Amino acid sequence: MKLEKYTQQDVEKLVLELNTESSGWIIEDGKLTKQYRFNDFNTAFGFMTMSAIYAEKVNHHPEWFNVYNKVTVQLITHDVSGISYKDADLARKMDSYANGLI
Amino acid sequence: MKLEKYTQQDVEKLVLELNTESSGWIIEDGKLTKQYRFNDFNTAFGFMTMSAIYAEKVNHHPEWFNVYNKVTVQLITHDVSGISYKDADLARKMDSYANGLI
Amino acid sequence: MKLEKYTQQDVEKLVLELNTESSGWIIEDGKLTKQYRFNDFNTAFGFMTMSAIYAEKVNHHPEWFNVYNKVTVQLITHDVSGISYKDADLARKMDSYANGLI
Amino acid sequence: MKLEKYTQQDVEKLVLELNTESSGWIIEDGKLTKQYRFNDFNTAFGFMTMSAIYAEKVNHHPEWFNVYNKVTVQLITHDVSGISYKDADLARKMDSYANGLI
Repeated sequence: MKLEKYTQQDVEKLVLELNTESSGWIIEDGKLTKQYRFNDFNTAFGFMTMSAIYAEKVNHHPEWFNVYNKVTVQLITHDVSGISYKDADLARKMDSYANGLI
Repeated sequence: MKLEKYTQQDVEKLVLELNTESSGWIIEDGKLTKQYRFNDFNTAFGFMTMSAIYAEKVNHHPEWFNVYNKVTVQLITHDVSGISYKDADLARKMDSYANGLI
Repeated sequence: MKLEKYTQQDVEKLVLELNTESSGWIIEDGKLTKQYRFNDFNTAFGFMTMSAIYAEKVNHHPEWFNVYNKVTVQLITHDVSGISYKDADLARKMDSYANGLI
Repeated sequence: MKLEKYTQQDVEKLVLELNTESSGWIIEDGKLTKQYRFNDFNTAFGFMTMSAIYAEKVNHHPEWFNVYNKVTVQLITHDVSGISYKDADLARKMDSYANGLI
């Protein structure tokens, strides 16, 4: 897949799609952003571990912040100074990991 | 709770109870044993991470073997040379972690 | 150990001590703060996993932010609205985990 | 690199090389085998997490067994029914992760 920056329209469509299957995705600081809330720290870190293993595999890493049961994720593709299919893919994967855990 | 070795009858009752909520628990080598099978390595290791964090917290660690999507767990309480409530507790916790992931 | 808020003098002494053994600790937003930089994402996440297991064990969790090889940690004890021996302990533990990895 | 099974001579050379930089590698069940011993469970699991992230990235997973501070690793390449450069690579990576931790 060619790596190019999503247009404003692409981004809006992506956010809409993500929020149909799951919810909570917004654009903040130009980044694809979501705050996950789990039952406890343990589950939050299990989610982070699965996401970390995937992120390293596809060589596309999140900016993320954790405190206790909350994980705030921000996704951006620095090579295109914007959002790309790589962020869309990581967002979907993270939602799928979180799905069974929340 | 007092740490004492489960009687043969306690162990049979425990295995029965665990296999009502979930399934696959057996006694092997005198240890509470189960083989989990996940979708992929990533999910298997997410399960292991959540279990590891819990195990360290309660200071009761599993014997476990992993290859790809499979995790074989064996639980025993060395202080009583047998199975105790600590194994019952860890088994239930592991089942609960695996539940959303499998 | 009694849980009480460190005085301004205690905090200064703590930061000084931490920066003797290691370096980079500052007070930011009233929190004990350090940015770790590892060789790569993998090592950064290994550090986070060891720290996570410890944090859950002592039931004192960091606020932390990660992107690629960087982990920014902020420690505070909400029960005393300030820094306590719990933060000092977690800071020392994190430094010891990072030590072999950086 | 072409994926082919190491000859008996290749394997002996590999074991010798690995044990020069580190130590403890043997051939067991036809697999490249080593038992690591860490300070505690926490460190052992940190090692496993780093190894897991790498293993998934290169799509070559270990057979491994853990109890408390011990991790026994067995490496084999099923596609060639023997040991290959993939095992040599994973072995070196695991040694490098363990290095700072033991």
